[in-house]
Amino acid sequence: MNLEDTLLMIPGPVPVAPRILRAMSKPIIGHRGSEFGKMYAECRETLQEVFATKNDIFIISGSGSCAMEAAVGNIIGEKDTLVAIENGKFGERFREIGGRYGNVKSVKSDWTKGEPIDLEKVETALAEGAKAVSLVHNETSVGIKNPASEVGKLAKKYGALFIMDGVTSIGGDDVQVDKWGVDLAVVGSQKCLGAPPGASAISVSEKAWGSMVAKPPYYMDLKSYKKSADKDQTPYTPAVPLFFAMHEALLIIKEEGVQARIKRHEMYANAVRAAADGMNIEMFPQLNKHSKYSNTVSAMKIPAGIDDGKLRGGMKELGIQVSGGQGSLSGKIFRIGTMGNVSKRDILSTIEALELVLHKNGVVKKIGAGIEAASNILM
Amino acid sequence: MNLEDTLLMIPGPVPVAPRILRAMSKPIIGHRGSEFGKMYAECRETLQEVFATKNDIFIISGSGSCAMEAAVGNIIGEKDTLVAIENGKFGERFREIGGRYGNVKSVKSDWTKGEPIDLEKVETALAEGAKAVSLVHNETSVGIKNPASEVGKLAKKYGALFIMDGVTSIGGDDVQVDKWGVDLAVVGSQKCLGAPPGASAISVSEKAWGSMVAKPPYYMDLKSYKKSADKDQTPYTPAVPLFFAMHEALLIIKEEGVQARIKRHEMYANAVRAAADGMNIEMFPQLNKHSKYSNTVSAMKIPAGIDDGKLRGGMKELGIQVSGGQGSLSGKIFRIGTMGNVSKRDILSTIEALELVLHKNGVVKKIGAGIEAASNILM
Repeated sequence: MNLEDTLLMIPGPVPVAPRILRAMSKPIIGHRGSEFGKMYAECRETLQEVFATKNDIFIISGSGSCAMEAAVGNIIGEKDTLVAIENGKFGERFREIGGRYGNVKSVKSDWTKGEPIDLEKVETALAEGAKAVSLVHNETSVGIKNPASEVGKLAKKYGALFIMDGVTSIGGDDVQVDKWGVDLAVVGSQKCLGAPPGASAISVSEKAWGSMVAKPPYYMDLKSYKKSADKDQTPYTPAVPLFFAMHEALLIIKEEGVQARIKRHEMYANAVRAAADGMNIEMFPQLNKHSKYSNTVSAMKIPAGIDDGKLRGGMKELGIQVSGGQGSLSGKIFRIGTMGNVSKRDILSTIEALELVLHKNGVVKKIGAGIEAASNILM
Repeated sequence: MNLEDTLLMIPGPVPVAPRILRAMSKPIIGHRGSEFGKMYAECRETLQEVFATKNDIFIISGSGSCAMEAAVGNIIGEKDTLVAIENGKFGERFREIGGRYGNVKSVKSDWTKGEPIDLEKVETALAEGAKAVSLVHNETSVGIKNPASEVGKLAKKYGALFIMDGVTSIGGDDVQVDKWGVDLAVVGSQKCLGAPPGASAISVSEKAWGSMVAKPPYYMDLKSYKKSADKDQTPYTPAVPLFFAMHEALLIIKEEGVQARIKRHEMYANAVRAAADGMNIEMFPQLNKHSKYSNTVSAMKIPAGIDDGKLRGGMKELGIQVSGGQGSLSGKIFRIGTMGNVSKRDILSTIEALELVLHKNGVVKKIGAGIEAASNILM
């Protein structure tokens, strides 16, 4: 099987548009020159638009986890408390990172059951006092969009900084960093932005600048990033090819328009959910008043009559890779990512492949309901 | 001027061979699959050969400074002492990183004068007790190759761990991690390895594994790297394109042979030094018994009769970028990097351009001595 021909419909990395791959493979330029500086400045400007913020914004030569740690490690010191909201694998990661720097108060939902966040518990934890609260906006492990705006209000009410992982939402779903009061927001390159993996970006509010610890990790020291960004540079050697790629990916976003891009992601997720409904596949997440289905990844229960290996293996044979469940959800759910620069054709191919595999395994009696439901949304 | 046509003869980033650029721009693959695993395992194996070590070795999706911090941040805790040997900008960086994690005892030479390291002072500092000692093997800011083998002996004598920055030597100059007793050695992708910037690698000795702190930075937690590497994976999303590039760069190194590559770098540096001598340009570093000229970057004094702007500007007009001095050395020295996959043609072009610029500015009376001296080494 030709791996280069496999369509990645997973919650990142996403397929990278050929023009981005071409941009990435340009000959390397020195990163202290004006050409690099111009490129970096343009990236930062477009990222502000994508984040919907006037805050400072920087690109980090490290993946999303590096940016998450930059957010926590610059804010949480030994005596500080982070309220870590957890309803998935990446929420857990914030707790783990927080534990390296200070105290963590964890507000958990049982993500192995796809439980949504309980805002009352969040408020109780914040009322006890905390320097910051962390939230994963779009929790890919369960396919839930968490209530960022509401958490932002609670953070404001209790005077805590709001750290938000927008790794898999920013650039694909509606994110309003300034309106929601997000003090530190992070995004990964290889998700909705449509670029290759390895880079990330972080925005920093005025309030966050006033609350920095004295000794953050050196490589993630946001004050150094700011000092260098004022000269259109990065503090350490940047991953120049990933900056080339990010620049091209952001050009594509500007051409499409941020709002149109968000609408397109919403439409894709709607199409997947409609198809699931048409094929009697149950969505995995439990929702409540403030929680919604993710618009960038759809988590579904593996239907009775087929197992994970047959479902995903069958789709891979047709050239399409989708994701399984993580941790104890392995074998119970599967997930289809619909992020970045994928096309209607990609969505339809994926649903078609899923329907065919379910049909061959006797789960779906008659071919057509899934693809028809999706086409009603897409066409 | 076409920046893509500028020959980068700086101490990194280096020109990247077209076959590496092509490898980098392959469609992205999932990083949890066996294809990625195979590639990562092959990279690690070749890196062991390049490092001359049997130690564990990992690739980090972050630049050399990230790997330097990984080395220090996993070893130095609040109550530990790092002896930081400094005779250049990157030696200073180890001191700064060390200060984020514990106590630092600095052993300084005046790098603005190009002073070599005083091993007696190093021994005195180590005799007072330290958990680790850090050394920059090849200090590009001054063009000196520091005495790594001797520092390794002192570290052993006083029971300290030896942290070595081989960012600009490994893959280009002779480095013997096991023989010298280097406990943590780091290299950058964009120097002698000939790959694009943004990745780095680190080797970890058995002794280092036994001395890890409890809470290193999350993104740089070497124990996580080891746990994942046992499954041919990385703990966090890797910069897949940079891994593609690293893999191809390491294939090139295997094809050339590590020893042949070291000899080639030595020959290039000899050619630059012979040319400098032929044009009456003074080398910048002061050497002593244990210090040598760098074999990957040559630091020279800017000759009387020309200034930095005219020298480097004139060369850039001819399509060749060389480096100036850093910090207070700006305007006093210039540096020619001869790292990675550059060719004899690149070396000769650079020397020719330098000679022509010096001639046009009246510094060199007659054209020919520089290029002839270099050709005697290269041909």
